[in-house]
Amino acid sequence: MTESSTQNSHLFKTIGVIGVGLLGGSIAAAARQRHLAETILGAGRNPSRMRAAQQSGLLDRGSTNIAETAAQSDLVIVCTPVNNIVQFIRIVAQNSRPGTVITDVGSTKQKICSELYGSLPEGVTFVASHPLAGSEKAGFEFADPELFAGRPCVVTPDDQTPDEAIERVKGFWEALGMHVLQTTPENHDRILAETSHLPHVISSALAMTLSEENRPFTSTGFRDTTRIAGGDPSIWIDILLSNSDAIIESIDKYTQSLARLREAIVNQDEKQLRQLLEDGKKNHDALNSAP
Amino acid sequence: MTESSTQNSHLFKTIGVIGVGLLGGSIAAAARQRHLAETILGAGRNPSRMRAAQQSGLLDRGSTNIAETAAQSDLVIVCTPVNNIVQFIRIVAQNSRPGTVITDVGSTKQKICSELYGSLPEGVTFVASHPLAGSEKAGFEFADPELFAGRPCVVTPDDQTPDEAIERVKGFWEALGMHVLQTTPENHDRILAETSHLPHVISSALAMTLSEENRPFTSTGFRDTTRIAGGDPSIWIDILLSNSDAIIESIDKYTQSLARLREAIVNQDEKQLRQLLEDGKKNHDALNSAP
Repeated sequence: MTESSTQNSHLFKTIGVIGVGLLGGSIAAAARQRHLAETILGAGRNPSRMRAAQQSGLLDRGSTNIAETAAQSDLVIVCTPVNNIVQFIRIVAQNSRPGTVITDVGSTKQKICSELYGSLPEGVTFVASHPLAGSEKAGFEFADPELFAGRPCVVTPDDQTPDEAIERVKGFWEALGMHVLQTTPENHDRILAETSHLPHVISSALAMTLSEENRPFTSTGFRDTTRIAGGDPSIWIDILLSNSDAIIESIDKYTQSLARLREAIVNQDEKQLRQLLEDGKKNHDALNSAP
Repeated sequence: MTESSTQNSHLFKTIGVIGVGLLGGSIAAAARQRHLAETILGAGRNPSRMRAAQQSGLLDRGSTNIAETAAQSDLVIVCTPVNNIVQFIRIVAQNSRPGTVITDVGSTKQKICSELYGSLPEGVTFVASHPLAGSEKAGFEFADPELFAGRPCVVTPDDQTPDEAIERVKGFWEALGMHVLQTTPENHDRILAETSHLPHVISSALAMTLSEENRPFTSTGFRDTTRIAGGDPSIWIDILLSNSDAIIESIDKYTQSLARLREAIVNQDEKQLRQLLEDGKKNHDALNSAP
């Protein structure tokens, strides 16, 4: 327990982070910096990594025991790769005290929600989340308490999710500096296919295309456009395969945009090319204007 | 003339910048900061803009008279949009003193070089350049003296270009902090189609694809991947149309990369998807490792 245990402003007495990588570590760091909990626990499969995370001060206690960590927490955030989330949330739910709220950070929501909503023990509530923040870096050593500030977070409850639990989870992300959007799991996956999963595919395809001998001739433009291609392939395989239908639809929509640009270049059609580049710039400018 | 006129370390007595926008302005700012010339002149078509650039201290004199600016300069750098460069270099060459070296910053080189090499007045030398540095911002107000530091610059002379002039131009870019690569205009355009023009097309196509109602669901990944789509459409129309053959070839190579990713997702082929994402990550990591 930390010195801040004397404060009364904590949103939660104990927070448990399952999976202490870049995202889980950043949640722990941000929760600490913003005094959101008296105690911050973490659990992961690698004992030496958990010890290191505890020794670094990121966690009050790092453990390999998920059940124990869950039993001591009021809010549990599962930060494992997408295809492990359901399994870990079941373990957490089976070991939590009544009243515990569970959330996650999974980049796709439909599979997770359809498996978990309505199937967890009485008294424990799962509210699915997706904080839209990340980094191509991996490991809690890169944990950044400001990773979430000013970013959107999507929560995707269903009709049966108690309002109180939704509000507690929303309040947690807002306390990390995020602005929270709410939609259905289905809508989330359809939208994120376009705004997050498509960019990853686009960026990886560009990085794949570069000939090794042309590397010295790249500059900031190439580097920015391929930044997210540096992400961990294992994490992205899970995301891309768990939302494949919507992603294929987005790739096909994108391919049409690309074909229109190609056609304007082939035809030396300055007017059409200007229209297309300006359409893109309009979205760019809207995203980069002050909020 | 500035106080630094007493120094003997100047590479050039007088530098003339034709076209004082983001790039031209950054060249002036970098040359000033690094004491590369006694006097820095600038010329552009808009009198009030030239006055403002002079008043800001970026230029020792801002003028609308290209001929006069050329006549007073030892090195002239033409920083206008690609499809004006030939025309302005002809004006510069006709008004320069013997011994003057002229270069440019055009993003495509084949058309410029084939029109200019061997066709300029005796005693004046043109050595084509392409500093791989830029910004999606426009205007000398965003001039950045560090824009060029650590970036590549490609110079594309031909067999007839005097070595001395090549060395002077290389020395100028190196003094701005760039590392200089040399190749033919044809190779330059083929390579840059892949490393610079393709990323712009890719990025614009992604920005075009975003539905307006999905804007709130974007985060840093989408924003980084579409950063260069914020570039001035007029500048990019010139680039894309003046190097269209090589760019179409690059788009087609890219489309194949994208199709392979799409196929792996459709087939839920984890092994193949991992291979492709890792191919991309390999290039990403190579570009982002310490030089």
